[in-house]
Amino acid sequence: MLLEDKKSKKQKNVRVRDIVIGGPEKVIISGPCSVEDYETMRKITSGLKKCGVQILRGGAFKPRTSPYDFQGLKHEGVKILHEVGKEFDMPIVTEIMDARDLESCAEHLDMIQVGSRNMYNYTLLKELGNYNIPILLKRGMSATLTEWLNAAEYIISSGNPDVVLCERGIRTFETYTRNTLDLNLVAAIKENYNIPIIVDPSHGTGRRELVGKMSLAGIVAGGDGVIIESHINPDKAISDAKQTISIENLSEIISNIKKIENLF
Amino acid sequence: MLLEDKKSKKQKNVRVRDIVIGGPEKVIISGPCSVEDYETMRKITSGLKKCGVQILRGGAFKPRTSPYDFQGLKHEGVKILHEVGKEFDMPIVTEIMDARDLESCAEHLDMIQVGSRNMYNYTLLKELGNYNIPILLKRGMSATLTEWLNAAEYIISSGNPDVVLCERGIRTFETYTRNTLDLNLVAAIKENYNIPIIVDPSHGTGRRELVGKMSLAGIVAGGDGVIIESHINPDKAISDAKQTISIENLSEIISNIKKIENLF
Amino acid sequence: MLLEDKKSKKQKNVRVRDIVIGGPEKVIISGPCSVEDYETMRKITSGLKKCGVQILRGGAFKPRTSPYDFQGLKHEGVKILHEVGKEFDMPIVTEIMDARDLESCAEHLDMIQVGSRNMYNYTLLKELGNYNIPILLKRGMSATLTEWLNAAEYIISSGNPDVVLCERGIRTFETYTRNTLDLNLVAAIKENYNIPIIVDPSHGTGRRELVGKMSLAGIVAGGDGVIIESHINPDKAISDAKQTISIENLSEIISNIKKIENLF
Amino acid sequence: MLLEDKKSKKQKNVRVRDIVIGGPEKVIISGPCSVEDYETMRKITSGLKKCGVQILRGGAFKPRTSPYDFQGLKHEGVKILHEVGKEFDMPIVTEIMDARDLESCAEHLDMIQVGSRNMYNYTLLKELGNYNIPILLKRGMSATLTEWLNAAEYIISSGNPDVVLCERGIRTFETYTRNTLDLNLVAAIKENYNIPIIVDPSHGTGRRELVGKMSLAGIVAGGDGVIIESHINPDKAISDAKQTISIENLSEIISNIKKIENLF
Repeated sequence: MLLEDKKSKKQKNVRVRDIVIGGPEKVIISGPCSVEDYETMRKITSGLKKCGVQILRGGAFKPRTSPYDFQGLKHEGVKILHEVGKEFDMPIVTEIMDARDLESCAEHLDMIQVGSRNMYNYTLLKELGNYNIPILLKRGMSATLTEWLNAAEYIISSGNPDVVLCERGIRTFETYTRNTLDLNLVAAIKENYNIPIIVDPSHGTGRRELVGKMSLAGIVAGGDGVIIESHINPDKAISDAKQTISIENLSEIISNIKKIENLF
Repeated sequence: MLLEDKKSKKQKNVRVRDIVIGGPEKVIISGPCSVEDYETMRKITSGLKKCGVQILRGGAFKPRTSPYDFQGLKHEGVKILHEVGKEFDMPIVTEIMDARDLESCAEHLDMIQVGSRNMYNYTLLKELGNYNIPILLKRGMSATLTEWLNAAEYIISSGNPDVVLCERGIRTFETYTRNTLDLNLVAAIKENYNIPIIVDPSHGTGRRELVGKMSLAGIVAGGDGVIIESHINPDKAISDAKQTISIENLSEIISNIKKIENLF
Repeated sequence: MLLEDKKSKKQKNVRVRDIVIGGPEKVIISGPCSVEDYETMRKITSGLKKCGVQILRGGAFKPRTSPYDFQGLKHEGVKILHEVGKEFDMPIVTEIMDARDLESCAEHLDMIQVGSRNMYNYTLLKELGNYNIPILLKRGMSATLTEWLNAAEYIISSGNPDVVLCERGIRTFETYTRNTLDLNLVAAIKENYNIPIIVDPSHGTGRRELVGKMSLAGIVAGGDGVIIESHINPDKAISDAKQTISIENLSEIISNIKKIENLF
Repeated sequence: MLLEDKKSKKQKNVRVRDIVIGGPEKVIISGPCSVEDYETMRKITSGLKKCGVQILRGGAFKPRTSPYDFQGLKHEGVKILHEVGKEFDMPIVTEIMDARDLESCAEHLDMIQVGSRNMYNYTLLKELGNYNIPILLKRGMSATLTEWLNAAEYIISSGNPDVVLCERGIRTFETYTRNTLDLNLVAAIKENYNIPIIVDPSHGTGRRELVGKMSLAGIVAGGDGVIIESHINPDKAISDAKQTISIENLSEIISNIKKIENLF
């Protein structure tokens, strides 16, 4: 059990095709909030590939607060992501919300994201235990460390050991930032538990101008990598524009991460 | 749309068999946290019926933090609840977590609860729109008013207009109580929106000795009723014992509610 | 010690001139956020007196977030409040923030308020222990039960036993209301501790239309009274206009409180 | 005004004797939570001096939750701190809580700390405006960015421009850590406002084993330095033992900070 694993501290890692999360190299996951169309996705991915992004992300099934907002391209989005990932030889990750979509989508994906809103969706978590595919498990908006580790345990105990956590900010009284990125728990998990963890400074801050500094902070706090929302035209991104950065900005962040990844 | 409905203020109500939620009479929903076995459920229900409880609750599918904890009697629990409800002529409500269980369970239930952990489970919410059965939609642990109303909107816009909200406390820094029961929002919803709302002082406080006072507070804040965890032997309840009250205590609370329900 | 007093449960009360806080009658404290000028204060007080308000409040020293905002009439405000209170034979309460102002102001006041921002100001709390005057101790914005009771203990252990708590809402992620009124703690304090407590639905909600319902909820949760911001012209109040109610509205709330104060 | 200063972004710094906070070199402030006695303070300081600590901290007036807990050595503590600082040629910083203590203590101090509990103590803040001494202004436990900058503005507008902010964690629902260190605001302040900021990973985490990683994270997020609780015998520290680290541990953290301070 994860929660009892404090003592061993053997560093577990999770492999997404040929990318190792939890090893000495920090992993960069990036892409747009939503997959918008094939051409835009291709252009973005071409840029990301050049600047060293290892895993491609893009939302196909979008959990939106209002039922009247854009809900994503769904299966069509998964198809676009799959094709573009294949063309540029990059593993892909996207969020799945419905246990019934797993069967049709899993074979096209290299990693499946469980979003914040579904961290407590035990139905989905148990179903993911039946798949042989790495899971990126985001922290719930107000989940405690114990609840988060137990959510991972739901997947692991159902048969799938390849779980990577993702800290994406919690809800607090502070409204200047969208969420409060809780790097304390990133440090705590690396110090005391045996599971890789990725940091999401895009949702964790909700502000484009803070993504660079908080990416670096996430890495030195112990993160095994970052997941960052990017776009060739951030201001026109169909969702989460305020927190989406340009490829140029991302490129600079990646080169800064390279400077520190092996320092400690 | 709920969020745009501020002006009309026509008081909508939802009917659960012959019980009206949102009308002049306050509705009492009660029962054990978990359905434990047929005999215990029968004894509890007999007591509840005598003291005026109108709708019977009992957990069959239990969303537990740890995958290693008791997960409920599942379909067997639904069956027990259904039989006991029939015997005592009481409508029943229980939580369903998996869209795939709806088909097999819906016909045995009079109302379906969406738990806190699933308020953002849009897959489940949309599926519930396909059923002709009232829904009790609990507030997520850190859901804002807007998000909560939008969750109801997911169900309503998918075809099922019979949604009742349930305030069950939010997460704050305070640890003396399990959650902080947010009666502000009960008052706000009655003042500004057109949807019935039930108050849950059991989860809202997590402490048996506070359930009585907070039930009354919930009613005068505008609640259309309360949902209270009760048991014939509260200390031996298989889950949530600390917040479960006895039938005697419940009986006293109900008679206090009767004293105030038509005062304002 | 307050924190060890759980068992005795003898109901302590505090006397403000001839008004008893903590007895069978619920106490109504009201007045404008800020003392604005003598004439306005006189007109407001005349209205309050007629509708049954027992203690007059009005801010003289205003703790404002920005140093450039109106800081209150200070000693001039205390003087106005004192004169108007005398004319209408009502005890008065106002906030003091500076231990050095106590000497000059205490003799003109019947009760001294410690505001939210100063609940942890141990210098001020200890100084108040030297005065023979009742204290209204507001809860800090994110103070736990233990910290709040200990703040009262600072005053009591310094020599002044006459402390009344005031719940005025805590900070949470919810932005629809200014604060989240935590009636759980009102119930908990009446159930387990031996100190009177007043509820402030004005700051606790920040919204005029919720003050009525939350006043009643505060009373049935166990509050010994309410403190409500009112004005003859609420929309023109110099501070906190959004949460200030009219004398007519207050009058209705008071008559509703009368209906329930002796029910339980 | 600080809040209107967004555009200029000229990097202000504050000088504490010959130490510059806000310049290219990151500043290390360290020492025990409480000044315990002369000999212990001397031994601790000797160790700190050797490992590169630039400013010595130590609590003399201790704001404790309970009035019955150790309240610090007060003036005697200031005297010890002053003497030890002089012997080792290190500027000293300590918390003052009472405006009336300023007169007697200010001349013995090189920097004055305003603690979390006093961030809203406008009486104290305005008084500090009359002194020609740098101020370390800790963030209130649930203070927003706007409130915190305004607290600094209270000091500055009263005549003292030398204010340094200190992020020390905020209150959230998470109980694994004592507070949640909010590095988002460190990044935001460096990005958008013109005032130096120090990070306190000791109070920000409450856990010794997280202090190292969170110190580094604080620096790359934009912090101008760190303030860390240390002791020659951490387990025997008279207060805050759980978050206090050894001189050896501190020495390692400092050398890690040196590796990154000029990287970006």
